Amino acid sequence: MTFTSKLRNAQELAGSALCVGLDPDPDRFPEQFRDLPPTVAVRRFCRAIIESTYDVACAYKPNLAFFEALGRDGLGVLEDVVASIPPDRVIIADGKRGDIGNTAARYATAVFENMSFDACTVSPYMGRDAISPFLSRPDKAAFALVRTSNMSANEIQGLDVGGVPLYLRIAYLLEDWGSGEPGEIGFVVGATDTAILADIRSRFPDIPLLVPGVGTQGGDPAAVMAAAGTGSGLVLVNSSRSILYAGDGEDFAERARDAASRLKDDLNRGR
Amino acid sequence: MTFTSKLRNAQELAGSALCVGLDPDPDRFPEQFRDLPPTVAVRRFCRAIIESTYDVACAYKPNLAFFEALGRDGLGVLEDVVASIPPDRVIIADGKRGDIGNTAARYATAVFENMSFDACTVSPYMGRDAISPFLSRPDKAAFALVRTSNMSANEIQGLDVGGVPLYLRIAYLLEDWGSGEPGEIGFVVGATDTAILADIRSRFPDIPLLVPGVGTQGGDPAAVMAAAGTGSGLVLVNSSRSILYAGDGEDFAERARDAASRLKDDLNRGR
Repeated sequence: MTFTSKLRNAQELAGSALCVGLDPDPDRFPEQFRDLPPTVAVRRFCRAIIESTYDVACAYKPNLAFFEALGRDGLGVLEDVVASIPPDRVIIADGKRGDIGNTAARYATAVFENMSFDACTVSPYMGRDAISPFLSRPDKAAFALVRTSNMSANEIQGLDVGGVPLYLRIAYLLEDWGSGEPGEIGFVVGATDTAILADIRSRFPDIPLLVPGVGTQGGDPAAVMAAAGTGSGLVLVNSSRSILYAGDGEDFAERARDAASRLKDDLNRGR
Repeated sequence: MTFTSKLRNAQELAGSALCVGLDPDPDRFPEQFRDLPPTVAVRRFCRAIIESTYDVACAYKPNLAFFEALGRDGLGVLEDVVASIPPDRVIIADGKRGDIGNTAARYATAVFENMSFDACTVSPYMGRDAISPFLSRPDKAAFALVRTSNMSANEIQGLDVGGVPLYLRIAYLLEDWGSGEPGEIGFVVGATDTAILADIRSRFPDIPLLVPGVGTQGGDPAAVMAAAGTGSGLVLVNSSRSILYAGDGEDFAERARDAASRLKDDLNRGR
């Protein structure tokens, strides 16, 4: 099954384009997690979030930094969390990896062979050979950074390259690099500038888009779907903190589910 | 002690600008490691390499991908290897991290707080807020990708931005972003194009340079030092595979030491 087939199935099952970002920060966990070792707390917290949001989310996106910050057992916790995600949902490793070929191949092994991620986020700055190791399997995808959602995104991504912004030039290069590979190339395009999002979608109607930045970062869900949901390529809209930390009491999992469910509805309204 | 003071001390102690890259690939280990579990083999192999090259190397650069590829215990192995590097040598986390501020802060915690790395390689594509969390401590440095040594480096890094190549525009931005921060900004500039290396050194005489790409990737050591060793900023020249896999028998550690020692001499000849 290709990545897009799996994602399409997952979106139909959940009736949703929502991806729940797993950025587990023990300092923000509810009271009942406070006395647990962080590795145990993260495992339990993530499992509770996955269980409560499963019926409204088509995908999960563990943020590797939050697991690496747990110390020597961080990758074990990540592996356990990934294993607890139902196999009919898409799982994206958010690591923004990018290195020379033989190193990129190791990162790809870590996420696609050791763990059962379906996709990984990658950084384009080093060129094609940093990305192609993530495109070697037809059932996997690499979501490359095109235009990100953070405050300083435009400093480099917006530089003028012969009349077009750098991110757009990179998007065309990425489309080209992905075209002959077994795996699929997708783009990361932030939710915070919907004009850019609509422009990219119109230029690349078939490319899967991963859109972070709704919720805490401020992107509007319905506007995002109106901008990005117009092509044949699928769209995944990610929210992390606004779901994970919707509540801070005993009922945090239900509160997370409510936040995810509202976001799902808001996204569907924009279609 | 600032990062540069520590690096200067280490270079004086070793009489060398050599950084040994730790890219441990169990498939390339000598016979005697073959029956060991990969985590054990990597720990032993790296410790033997560190012990045998210590007197000719000022720094070590573990490549995080090779540890992550070991699976759930990968970060534990990395932590043990880092702990076995003598404290008077500089240790660089080669992860090419780059993400939004709250995530970048987690990566910085992983390498600077949980482990005692002195520096981390970072990717500039997301802008200033992806790099500043790595510059928050005066004893730490972030080496940002400017011009890399891989085959396809130029595809994006060489794009023309108002008459200058993108990597040069980024270098000026990085210098600016680093100027007000407690930590130090350094540049990663590949050894494979010494004209570019010399140009960057002449424009940024004070910036520490991390230069990968000698050895297996083809950069010439003396030419690299002649190009990069002309400023007041320090230079670190990395080689990984040509040292680690210099021998494949019982005497692999001595062979690695010989290769490192020759490279040290070649570098010193170029000064």
